Amino acid sequence: MNILAIDTSGPVAGCAVMIDGRVVHSIALNHGLTHSETIMPAVEEAMSGSGLACADVDVFAAVAGPGSFTGVRIGVCAAKGFAHAVNKPCVPIHALEALAMNFYGFDGLVCPILDARRSQVYCALFDAGRGFPERVAADDAVALETLLERLPEGRRIMFAGDGLAVHAKTILEKLGDRAMIAPANLRDLRPDAVCALAARKRDEWVPAHELRPVYLRAPQAERERSARLSREAQR
Amino acid sequence: MNILAIDTSGPVAGCAVMIDGRVVHSIALNHGLTHSETIMPAVEEAMSGSGLACADVDVFAAVAGPGSFTGVRIGVCAAKGFAHAVNKPCVPIHALEALAMNFYGFDGLVCPILDARRSQVYCALFDAGRGFPERVAADDAVALETLLERLPEGRRIMFAGDGLAVHAKTILEKLGDRAMIAPANLRDLRPDAVCALAARKRDEWVPAHELRPVYLRAPQAERERSARLSREAQR
Repeated sequence: MNILAIDTSGPVAGCAVMIDGRVVHSIALNHGLTHSETIMPAVEEAMSGSGLACADVDVFAAVAGPGSFTGVRIGVCAAKGFAHAVNKPCVPIHALEALAMNFYGFDGLVCPILDARRSQVYCALFDAGRGFPERVAADDAVALETLLERLPEGRRIMFAGDGLAVHAKTILEKLGDRAMIAPANLRDLRPDAVCALAARKRDEWVPAHELRPVYLRAPQAERERSARLSREAQR
Repeated sequence: MNILAIDTSGPVAGCAVMIDGRVVHSIALNHGLTHSETIMPAVEEAMSGSGLACADVDVFAAVAGPGSFTGVRIGVCAAKGFAHAVNKPCVPIHALEALAMNFYGFDGLVCPILDARRSQVYCALFDAGRGFPERVAADDAVALETLLERLPEGRRIMFAGDGLAVHAKTILEKLGDRAMIAPANLRDLRPDAVCALAARKRDEWVPAHELRPVYLRAPQAERERSARLSREAQR
């Protein structure tokens, strides 16, 4: 089985090819460049390096969010486009679950945090002690303080994700030994994890037109429009 | 601090660039192609993508073994060459420790196994429960059966490495629930882990000419020569 995985949901632009259960080509770029410019050359390199044409791919996996609004749409649209062209399915992969997949087997809780700006984090909580991450808490967009207060006592918590750049120090100050901070090699989302999840989630493969982004907040433009409409309605 | 990491010690050819603690470019190729052909274009891509020239790199990290004799020499020689050219240090990274680094925080033992042919595995044992892997057993080249008999009771063991392609089934049969098998995204050595270890091992940086491969067995040509010399001496 051949899988192409694409992730442009956060600071990293990544793509990977998995053939029969092994990741054969993996590229992860974190240069602060525009994902719309970097992802297509990376995909082309991964596909040609792996000797695959689009028609050879069995499923196109994309990280569907949560993450950057524009970033999520770039990856999702690329996967949709490829899949539509060759009439193959897509599979949406959840950004926070893919991050938790970096800690397969970790005997505590995994708490991926993404910087959601406005001093908030996108977060969730997974138990990966038995291997694949099992969800313990739903996605949320909250202030870091709120997240830390809600965490269950008595278990180690592994934090990962780009939220660490802003919040690692505070987390360690507040939680002490209970907190572990992901090392550089496991801190960010990797397309390899997207492949591994895509292979496992065979029952979540969907036709290309059903692949949709996962947003926790409405995009800013929609929030502003809805605020404006509600102000107008009150006049 | 800028780090270039190179790994050609096993089936994967990998290189990664780390800038100030973040991996900014990571490539891992597992196409069964000759590493001597694939690694230099990958290094060039990672360096130019990161906007770095050789002279900007503070340390050149290479996986020094154990692994394929020829593979180890390709990576070590590349790092030596770059470092010598710009008069910067190298740092040797141990292949099995880098594999264990995929399981930072795992609350059990991590047992990386590399296929050493002749039904043997290169193996070691690490405790990564506190984060960075701490060595529990020295490198060895033994039959899989011998390794499994020696493993301590009462702890979960996470197996990783290319030895799984041959031995995963036997491991699960013999150890049952005590054994965990690394998922596809954490199974192989990743250059990101080499960067993370290189940054940590500042006291192991050495001048380029002191970077040497780590072999557990003498290369086949040397073993044959030594056997021939000893036969001749007995005549």
